[in-house]
Amino acid sequence: MIDLSGRDFLTTLDFSPEEIRGLLSFARDIKSGRVRPALEGKVAALLFFNPSVRTRTSCESALARFGGTAIALAAGKDTWNFECREGFVMDQNTQEHVRELAPVLSRMSHFVGIRKSELVTVGLDKAQVTGDYAELAKDEFIHRFCEFAEVPVINLESNRWHPMQGLADSLTMLEKLGDPRGKKYVLTWTWHPKSLPVATPHSQLLSAADLGMNVTILRPEGWGLEPEVVRRARQRAEALGGSVSETDDIDAALRGAHVVCAKEWGSLDYYGRFDEEQAAKAPLRARWIVDVPKLEKTDDAFFMHCLPVRRNVVVSDGVLNSNRSAVIDQAENRLWTAAAVFGALARR
Amino acid sequence: MIDLSGRDFLTTLDFSPEEIRGLLSFARDIKSGRVRPALEGKVAALLFFNPSVRTRTSCESALARFGGTAIALAAGKDTWNFECREGFVMDQNTQEHVRELAPVLSRMSHFVGIRKSELVTVGLDKAQVTGDYAELAKDEFIHRFCEFAEVPVINLESNRWHPMQGLADSLTMLEKLGDPRGKKYVLTWTWHPKSLPVATPHSQLLSAADLGMNVTILRPEGWGLEPEVVRRARQRAEALGGSVSETDDIDAALRGAHVVCAKEWGSLDYYGRFDEEQAAKAPLRARWIVDVPKLEKTDDAFFMHCLPVRRNVVVSDGVLNSNRSAVIDQAENRLWTAAAVFGALARR
Amino acid sequence: MIDLSGRDFLTTLDFSPEEIRGLLSFARDIKSGRVRPALEGKVAALLFFNPSVRTRTSCESALARFGGTAIALAAGKDTWNFECREGFVMDQNTQEHVRELAPVLSRMSHFVGIRKSELVTVGLDKAQVTGDYAELAKDEFIHRFCEFAEVPVINLESNRWHPMQGLADSLTMLEKLGDPRGKKYVLTWTWHPKSLPVATPHSQLLSAADLGMNVTILRPEGWGLEPEVVRRARQRAEALGGSVSETDDIDAALRGAHVVCAKEWGSLDYYGRFDEEQAAKAPLRARWIVDVPKLEKTDDAFFMHCLPVRRNVVVSDGVLNSNRSAVIDQAENRLWTAAAVFGALARR
Repeated sequence: MIDLSGRDFLTTLDFSPEEIRGLLSFARDIKSGRVRPALEGKVAALLFFNPSVRTRTSCESALARFGGTAIALAAGKDTWNFECREGFVMDQNTQEHVRELAPVLSRMSHFVGIRKSELVTVGLDKAQVTGDYAELAKDEFIHRFCEFAEVPVINLESNRWHPMQGLADSLTMLEKLGDPRGKKYVLTWTWHPKSLPVATPHSQLLSAADLGMNVTILRPEGWGLEPEVVRRARQRAEALGGSVSETDDIDAALRGAHVVCAKEWGSLDYYGRFDEEQAAKAPLRARWIVDVPKLEKTDDAFFMHCLPVRRNVVVSDGVLNSNRSAVIDQAENRLWTAAAVFGALARR
Repeated sequence: MIDLSGRDFLTTLDFSPEEIRGLLSFARDIKSGRVRPALEGKVAALLFFNPSVRTRTSCESALARFGGTAIALAAGKDTWNFECREGFVMDQNTQEHVRELAPVLSRMSHFVGIRKSELVTVGLDKAQVTGDYAELAKDEFIHRFCEFAEVPVINLESNRWHPMQGLADSLTMLEKLGDPRGKKYVLTWTWHPKSLPVATPHSQLLSAADLGMNVTILRPEGWGLEPEVVRRARQRAEALGGSVSETDDIDAALRGAHVVCAKEWGSLDYYGRFDEEQAAKAPLRARWIVDVPKLEKTDDAFFMHCLPVRRNVVVSDGVLNSNRSAVIDQAENRLWTAAAVFGALARR
Repeated sequence: MIDLSGRDFLTTLDFSPEEIRGLLSFARDIKSGRVRPALEGKVAALLFFNPSVRTRTSCESALARFGGTAIALAAGKDTWNFECREGFVMDQNTQEHVRELAPVLSRMSHFVGIRKSELVTVGLDKAQVTGDYAELAKDEFIHRFCEFAEVPVINLESNRWHPMQGLADSLTMLEKLGDPRGKKYVLTWTWHPKSLPVATPHSQLLSAADLGMNVTILRPEGWGLEPEVVRRARQRAEALGGSVSETDDIDAALRGAHVVCAKEWGSLDYYGRFDEEQAAKAPLRARWIVDVPKLEKTDDAFFMHCLPVRRNVVVSDGVLNSNRSAVIDQAENRLWTAAAVFGALARR
């Protein structure tokens, strides 16, 4: 059984492909009932700055099934407002510094999970974002938190990464494809009324790269993922005999695909100029939706999406209601991979 | 021990009177400590679109006492906004469709509980309702959810039904009356500053009908319950030797009553014209409150109310503070009947 | 093992110094792993009218580690609005009376915890307070709740007391000082942008008095604590050979101190005239912050604060980042003292 005891889980990139495979194998064993993660009496504090369905229920359920307990806190509602700037004179709107918050939650619990993404909102609410993407991508809060935490910290989605999603995606592909090495994985951008974060597609890109797949990032010009992340994914894919390429040629991308994973995300180029981006992407809406005719261009690919998904905007009912959709199995795997992560990181 | 394994619990009407009696007997055995429902390691996701005290604490406590766990989610706050319209192009304010939500929560948990009532609000806040009652009474969300769920779904109060309350009421009457058959049960309307839903009185009506009681629905003209529900309740009561009648004659109704159950609800006739209803019901306020003189007209009846109750509006302090009030025992029975429902529906 | 079975825990003043010592000894034994509190299958309903980090996670974690479960409810959000006025005609904004709420939560759970402080808000939000301090200090809601509750009620912070903090502070001093009798404890007021409650300093004052320490309350003229509380603390301190004095002489107070506990609180004299207080205390800000030069005037004192703390407003980074700061250990002790309180109050 894999032992990552005491480590943080901030991005799958922090783990070797062997460690990722170890986690996935542990998750499969938990799912099949062959092993139980040692979570009896373990407590996780889960700090949510954003809404959640799958992340929260998968983590809470994973702990509960194996004797542990989650304490879910809505940051700034159930709690105080948090500060992470160093040396700041805290006479404004923040009341508690991560220098206290992190060790305190560490003393109360065996794990801390944090979801903090500046671009995620409910409904059509606009995100209140200032600064540029480079600033956001630092994920300052969670990194500062880790600096002062005394227990494993788990990233439940930051601005740059959503590693719990990445793991679940990998497990799903392992289950559906057997040996995914050399299979073609297409990560396709889709239109969305808002400018969503790149955290999930970053981790999804890695989920396929770490399985040694041939990855195609299919996106319009101007909507590329972070170049450094693509570079790292390519490096890891190639080490396993896979590849990573980028294109805006939809037909070429879909040809021969074994997996189509759709994801809507905002442009890093237009970052901070959301109204301009809206205008620029309006003409792309119809052409980039994933529908049945598109799926028929593939090599009988199955369809993935992290959920929630806006039906008939990102993907058509036809695809989601068909037996090519893997989205429910994919979501279920959030549960088993969460159990594996908690079990593997737990201090012995 | 009753086995309703895998069934949904949306309304007591979906169960035969024998099954209801089986659930009640199971609840009594749990309450007395004779049996434990098999809830070890079971997880329930509880989705609250409305506030809750009894429903939430009874479900959470019922699970916790027997080794299970509840995950309570405030819909639209902790979560995304949900959609249930078929074929809808989701580019508006909703982000997740029940076609995904239902199977996903099913994979994460062993039960899903849902409270979704369009007319329930905190304080004096007005409900935001459009459409007519017939539309609301379809309880579209929960039915659509069930269609796509893979685990038992429990109705924690919809627009039309509140079956968990109904069961607790039945248990309370069994305890207080021994054999309730042929005893007189009065369900009396009372004035309230808002137009509250008919879900609870519907399920309360059935709670007495399914015990074979002689039921009198006491309400002003214009505030009748849904005719189809009354018809079904009458059918079930008569099959057990009981009856269901309706009247606005307070004195006649109270004469010989063994149980007085008060409930405030909005008029279906005035539905959607709440201001008109307010004006029309203003003169009824003083006359319809349940007070001690009224209770004295009965055959030593005990008093029931589902709670929360507006004191000295719906019922007087005198009644609630007297030993004729059964409201606390009734609320406690929410716990034991919830344990019975979870235990009976659990997949083996 | 101490047995306070069935008692409420509203203020440490309700317990004899021997009982307090018994609780502290129980907490130490739990912390060291020598004993486990008997919390298997126990359920606590925790009602939060205010935000919380330490209180909520310490209570939830204490229960979870030993087989119990917490149900945390955000009052007025997850629940209805509550009323506690006797004889009130409830046709306004409140929907549920403590006369129902208290017995109902009692039937659902084995403990009820309540945090209700009118002066606590998130960020810089102003508290909505009417009436005077004497009114607030009655803590009417929690006392009324206790009157109708059937299980132990635990004060998670009221307007007048924060006994769970007091216990944790005592445990921390026992651990750091060995025998605290006769040691010098300074409770120092500090400036803060808002007018915070006196509940915590009241309970902190008692935490040192009940250890027989020599207590100095260091505060500007006009910011004294409630005289009756100071009198009771003095009485208890003196009975154990300690003392309680008050001063605004910072240097004299710090000289020879073994513990410096900082707390920001609002003036009872200015109560209800918060803007005037703001103006009056503005000149005090710089002089009253706890910084390294101040700590150097002590007898190698360690530093305490209940948290959350506004860094560089109440206390400097230099103090908090130094090895003289005990704030994290102090926060951790919230967990072990909470476990002791639940364990000791539990009905056998």
